[in-house]
Amino acid sequence: MVQGFSIRKIEPRDYLGVIAALNELTSVGTVDIEEFSRVIEYWKSCTVQDDIPVYNPYVVVDDATNDVAATGNLIIEQKLIHNCALCGHIEDIAVSAKFQGKKLGKFLIDYLTDTGLKAGCYKVILDCDEKNVKFYEKCGYSKAGVEMQIRE
Amino acid sequence: MVQGFSIRKIEPRDYLGVIAALNELTSVGTVDIEEFSRVIEYWKSCTVQDDIPVYNPYVVVDDATNDVAATGNLIIEQKLIHNCALCGHIEDIAVSAKFQGKKLGKFLIDYLTDTGLKAGCYKVILDCDEKNVKFYEKCGYSKAGVEMQIRE
Repeated sequence: MVQGFSIRKIEPRDYLGVIAALNELTSVGTVDIEEFSRVIEYWKSCTVQDDIPVYNPYVVVDDATNDVAATGNLIIEQKLIHNCALCGHIEDIAVSAKFQGKKLGKFLIDYLTDTGLKAGCYKVILDCDEKNVKFYEKCGYSKAGVEMQIRE
Repeated sequence: MVQGFSIRKIEPRDYLGVIAALNELTSVGTVDIEEFSRVIEYWKSCTVQDDIPVYNPYVVVDDATNDVAATGNLIIEQKLIHNCALCGHIEDIAVSAKFQGKKLGKFLIDYLTDTGLKAGCYKVILDCDEKNVKFYEKCGYSKAGVEMQIRE
């Protein structure tokens, strides 16, 4: 909990705030409100068995102004291993510039982690830069491996 | 390409071979053929926009015997960043004990990577142990970050 802030699912009205937060993380490009709404609708349409959402896109909002302060997503993967277990993947965590330093990142990570574990995920994983390892350790995470990538 | 082996999508008839391969990787538990088939059907039912499969579960098979030699999955995630880009996640790569040392792991990774990039993913990522970094570098991957995890 962070006093004065709440967490809820992303909605189409969060367009400007979510894009602004994500632009702190990386390049978003030219996503217009129709594309934004289409992605949110697509995310909503995906369920794992037992109607668990595949995508769990959240925003942290400033209660006083309804401004989007941070955003992040949790993707739930259906596996075969570990008795057809579910695995959570935290993706695209971003905090808007003017809301940094308020512990909203930890608030969001704690919430997404809890969402994944309550949905039955045997683990929740995420990839981060070496410089963010300490932050995730404070959220209860520990190092598990190396992220490798290939780009087009 | 590896002479004498082919790659195709997982089918229900691959039950025993896939479970045996995955047991080389980690504990699979007591997944019976009905549960196996249900997961495969669920995987088939998931599509990203434009009917790109979310799950791309493949097997490498021995052409002479139809034995499953290796298995792996590629999950395609719909993002908002980078103009609503797709991102590929390679998961649960396993080679059966008696087929190890034949370069089937690289054959499979190359195939899954190509599948992701052809589907339009701006990158394909995976998490591995430090000891497997060199193998993935031979497949064209490079280190991108740290995998963090939290378990139930």
